Amino acid sequence: MPTNSNLRRPPLDKAVAEVRLAVRQSLSGNVNEGETVLVALSGGPDSLALAAATAFEAVKQGISAGAVIVDHGLQERSADVASHAANQARALGLNPVIETRVQVADAGGPEAAARTARYEAFESALAGTGASALLLGHTLDDQAETVLLGLARGSGSGSLMGMAPVSGRYLRPLLGVRRESTHAACAAEGLEPWIDPHNTDQAFTRVRVREKVLPVLERELGPGIAEALARTAEQLREDTEAFDSMIDEFIEEICEPAEAGIAVSISALAANPAALRNRIIRMVALSEFGQSLSRMHTIAIAALVTDWRGQGPIDVPGISVRRNGGLLEFSARAPEVG
Amino acid sequence: MPTNSNLRRPPLDKAVAEVRLAVRQSLSGNVNEGETVLVALSGGPDSLALAAATAFEAVKQGISAGAVIVDHGLQERSADVASHAANQARALGLNPVIETRVQVADAGGPEAAARTARYEAFESALAGTGASALLLGHTLDDQAETVLLGLARGSGSGSLMGMAPVSGRYLRPLLGVRRESTHAACAAEGLEPWIDPHNTDQAFTRVRVREKVLPVLERELGPGIAEALARTAEQLREDTEAFDSMIDEFIEEICEPAEAGIAVSISALAANPAALRNRIIRMVALSEFGQSLSRMHTIAIAALVTDWRGQGPIDVPGISVRRNGGLLEFSARAPEVG
Repeated sequence: MPTNSNLRRPPLDKAVAEVRLAVRQSLSGNVNEGETVLVALSGGPDSLALAAATAFEAVKQGISAGAVIVDHGLQERSADVASHAANQARALGLNPVIETRVQVADAGGPEAAARTARYEAFESALAGTGASALLLGHTLDDQAETVLLGLARGSGSGSLMGMAPVSGRYLRPLLGVRRESTHAACAAEGLEPWIDPHNTDQAFTRVRVREKVLPVLERELGPGIAEALARTAEQLREDTEAFDSMIDEFIEEICEPAEAGIAVSISALAANPAALRNRIIRMVALSEFGQSLSRMHTIAIAALVTDWRGQGPIDVPGISVRRNGGLLEFSARAPEVG
Repeated sequence: MPTNSNLRRPPLDKAVAEVRLAVRQSLSGNVNEGETVLVALSGGPDSLALAAATAFEAVKQGISAGAVIVDHGLQERSADVASHAANQARALGLNPVIETRVQVADAGGPEAAARTARYEAFESALAGTGASALLLGHTLDDQAETVLLGLARGSGSGSLMGMAPVSGRYLRPLLGVRRESTHAACAAEGLEPWIDPHNTDQAFTRVRVREKVLPVLERELGPGIAEALARTAEQLREDTEAFDSMIDEFIEEICEPAEAGIAVSISALAANPAALRNRIIRMVALSEFGQSLSRMHTIAIAALVTDWRGQGPIDVPGISVRRNGGLLEFSARAPEVG
């Protein structure tokens, strides 16, 4: 008697289905048939579930999928962890599987240095394989943590918009998927993830946000706070993109070279709402002088436009700004001698 | 020997100076000479410091300053608290001093009902005195708490922009002043504030945010979190105002009446960035149908514009939206029978 193979297949696990759907949507929106993608695999539950789902979905869309495993060499036995992850990637059918050991510099704090080294390894893997995209395993929980970390910076939408689902060739398919789903998906597929001891090391601010801040918010403000933070990030990213594209449209028209710097039309600045005016001022300071202005300094400069009472030049770190006729003139300023 | 009275005056307390400066700036930007303002006085430290500073600053700007004290009748001895506050107001030289007892309805939760009753009393005090502005004592700490309460809603800048420094005739001069400064100002001026037992009642979410959430954020993300939250509110308010004014400029051009509802031009929606498109959709739903759309519903409707694959009407609570030629048609929908 013929058997119906569909009937004998166990029902698809809900978490596996959720991760696969997220990967399917990200691939179909951002990668073309015939192209290659790489999964950034640490061996942890998020990236392992991502790797499994990508192996499954890529084939169906005519996409080749490989993996890149970065050994930061910061923990004992990190080489074993990396080679175990590489074996898992091969077992999932990913190809090529690139293992790369990086040198983490001391500069800029351990987290920042590891990140820099990691992204250099990703770039070289992309270049070496000709892959068109690299998939990262950041989840909704990571996004919520990133928003909370941004709260402390207090610079509005720019610090609260979290990570981008698409940023150049980097894709983050799982930003809408809870961490518990990636764990459940690994369990359902019999994949044993590596548990990074750094993930519970309270020396890291992100770990404290995860283990101390989010639980308190959840308890006092009600459940669903992680999802609310992720929604907020999505909307604030849209806002930022809208302002950026508006400014792009007219920034060149309203700026001109000036003695030792750049000048911006006062009437153009005055005609725009504060949200755009302040962003233009910050953008000029950053792009022309490499200075990131505080809100207080930005507002003081904007007052030369909106609250003109004949005040003198405004000196902020590295820049002096003065009103000259119809122009706001930015010029470089020698650093203060302390 | 003649004495120099300036030399004999004690130095002005720092907190008193800070509160006065904040009031001076708010009055000079928003109130004209010869006009009257009212301070909303509960007798607590924030509004008491505000009342003292307003009494001092208003005179110097040729402004009359009175006070309005609302007795909510919700706590034992609330009438005594109100009349004590009224005496303090008179002692500060405020005139007129209006004491008003309100009836708090049961509907909508105790906090919301008290708020409604309070603002009704404010409106009638403004009307009765012909005052042009009413000053509220909300501090930077209140603003930070409001932002955190908004985080749980997760609707982006709209829920994180906190309270407005100027909203119609309501002014909030102290949004940049820490609560510890209002307490210190009262102490320095020998003013004894009333301590509201509700301010430590953990049944109120706001109290838990103040006593449990903010201290954890401060400890784990570093000091300065309240100021960072207040800066974020300021910037997100600017963003929201910018989007609102942009939409105001063209909303009428892109909408037209339709059968049983309203229609919006698809090409106009498509030409705008997501931040504006989604806000227009939400605004149409709210202003025409009184429905506040979730982000998920907003995105589903926007997909009729940005990801058109011939999909059918999108039904959301109270509204059905369909694509019809070059128009997105919104029409009323009978509520679902549960």
